[in-house]
Amino acid sequence: MPRPYIPSEELARRVEEDETFAVARLISRAEAGMPEARSALGTIYRKAGRAHVIGITGVPGSGKSTLVGVFVQKLRALGGKVAIVAIDPSSPYSGGSILGDRIRMADLALDPGVFIRSMATRGALGGMAHAALDVVDILDVAGYDWIIIETVGVGQDEVEIAHATHTTVVVSAPGLGDEVQAIKAGILEIADIHVVSKCDRADANRTLADLKTMLKDTQPREDGWRPPVVGLSSLNGEGFEALLDAIGRHRAALAASGGERRRKAIAAFRLSKTAETLTLERLKSLLRSRLDDAAEKLSARRSDPYSEADHLVRAFTGEKDHV
Amino acid sequence: MPRPYIPSEELARRVEEDETFAVARLISRAEAGMPEARSALGTIYRKAGRAHVIGITGVPGSGKSTLVGVFVQKLRALGGKVAIVAIDPSSPYSGGSILGDRIRMADLALDPGVFIRSMATRGALGGMAHAALDVVDILDVAGYDWIIIETVGVGQDEVEIAHATHTTVVVSAPGLGDEVQAIKAGILEIADIHVVSKCDRADANRTLADLKTMLKDTQPREDGWRPPVVGLSSLNGEGFEALLDAIGRHRAALAASGGERRRKAIAAFRLSKTAETLTLERLKSLLRSRLDDAAEKLSARRSDPYSEADHLVRAFTGEKDHV
Repeated sequence: MPRPYIPSEELARRVEEDETFAVARLISRAEAGMPEARSALGTIYRKAGRAHVIGITGVPGSGKSTLVGVFVQKLRALGGKVAIVAIDPSSPYSGGSILGDRIRMADLALDPGVFIRSMATRGALGGMAHAALDVVDILDVAGYDWIIIETVGVGQDEVEIAHATHTTVVVSAPGLGDEVQAIKAGILEIADIHVVSKCDRADANRTLADLKTMLKDTQPREDGWRPPVVGLSSLNGEGFEALLDAIGRHRAALAASGGERRRKAIAAFRLSKTAETLTLERLKSLLRSRLDDAAEKLSARRSDPYSEADHLVRAFTGEKDHV
Repeated sequence: MPRPYIPSEELARRVEEDETFAVARLISRAEAGMPEARSALGTIYRKAGRAHVIGITGVPGSGKSTLVGVFVQKLRALGGKVAIVAIDPSSPYSGGSILGDRIRMADLALDPGVFIRSMATRGALGGMAHAALDVVDILDVAGYDWIIIETVGVGQDEVEIAHATHTTVVVSAPGLGDEVQAIKAGILEIADIHVVSKCDRADANRTLADLKTMLKDTQPREDGWRPPVVGLSSLNGEGFEALLDAIGRHRAALAASGGERRRKAIAAFRLSKTAETLTLERLKSLLRSRLDDAAEKLSARRSDPYSEADHLVRAFTGEKDHV
């Protein structure tokens, strides 16, 4: 028997009661970019804004998934509901092969106050950022107090998403090797809080010292916030109190300055990404009808991408063509 | 004394004589997405199509930069001119700290038959793919016989660029750990040739065996090509003949089938990316004038991203607004 189709507006109403089925289904529609769901997601957006959203990002191998697993248990001990949105193909939630993590995550998955969702990163055609933030709103309206977005910290989209949160945590780790560290350097600047994981290792002290040296000469933010460096060991459970404390202080600092600047920056990012997605979606359908002919001319070098793209874009925006 | 501005059309003419200055300057303009350069890049495109373009991609730590260094020396021994376009923030050309590689690259840099260029991956606003392929055309018209695009193999753009070449080489390596391997799995399917680097290591045999097992059940391509697996050691210089041989066979297979399908697919990809870039560029200038007001309404939750984006996109495409 086929399941009846439930309109997204109805799912949105049921999300407010944190009905797990409605949350999961509306998330799937947001992820798929279903046009039918947009007005409901608009409704959800207007009701959201209560949760504290934490972006946690770090390169593969930085131990960030294990860290998130332990961190969520600490947050739960404080009493609030916690949701995790994992945007990371290597994440254990999406089938990574780190056995220890899987077991830990299985424990979390049994806790009714924890919601875990992994999102695909490919094929989303630039729509991943606004889909991820739609998912955050759904979880916010469903009553989750803490929402963690975990991203892999490589790739512009992933880094931007981690930054479109209230508190951005960047995870570094000892022993990753120079090539990986060089990539990481590009994401240090977005951190509100720096974490060095695996501090049970002997070489972690050097990573902590290196990071502090790198940060020494950076200016404090306009609002006076100076990103602290926190050492953690997921193995021993050490350092998590300090991380919670740093997040609490950052949240208070945001609130003290009205949080207006950050909220407006996030809203502007959000709107840009949504407008880009809607625009590219429409462009794609125009391209579908014209791409074949144009590609033929291009592959024979009888035209060039700029001339053909210019025709297309003029047709798209309703401008008159030169020709 | 300020340098006189040389029109891009003139640079394009001088590129045909492989004048290094003109090549470097036109590349910079392509990379910056300068509107003035577009017609010249169109001219370049129509003259290009002679070089064999090889995409080499692999995750950080796969040893792909070292491999490229040795591989280019082998190609040079065959007599042709070689260009490298590195799209990888961790690449030694762009300041990575792998000393051995740097020395090797310094040797290459002294060879007048080798051109090395690294491209930034951030801030390009989706324009990286078409900029990179513009750079390839410039080098093609400048007479480079082999053009290598090296990308980091993480992130959709990077993977797509590596695939928009004649021959795509995916580099795996032993000992990278599960998290990194899981990411890599996503890029295996684009490979025309698989390489396992660091085969001087004892654990390389397992990586080779694992990869062959993974590939055993995949179907041959429509054109009958079955991606071979080549083991390499950059340390000992072993396996590079086999890689050259595999590339030669793939090139011949492409030519035998007319290469038409691949050329059209690349042209279609190229046009899509260029049209997207030109469209988003125009959208950005519309957004600039309207973003502030809209972000204000959004951050107060008085509106939502979909409603605001819909207004914007309607204004952009000249459609009538509902309101």
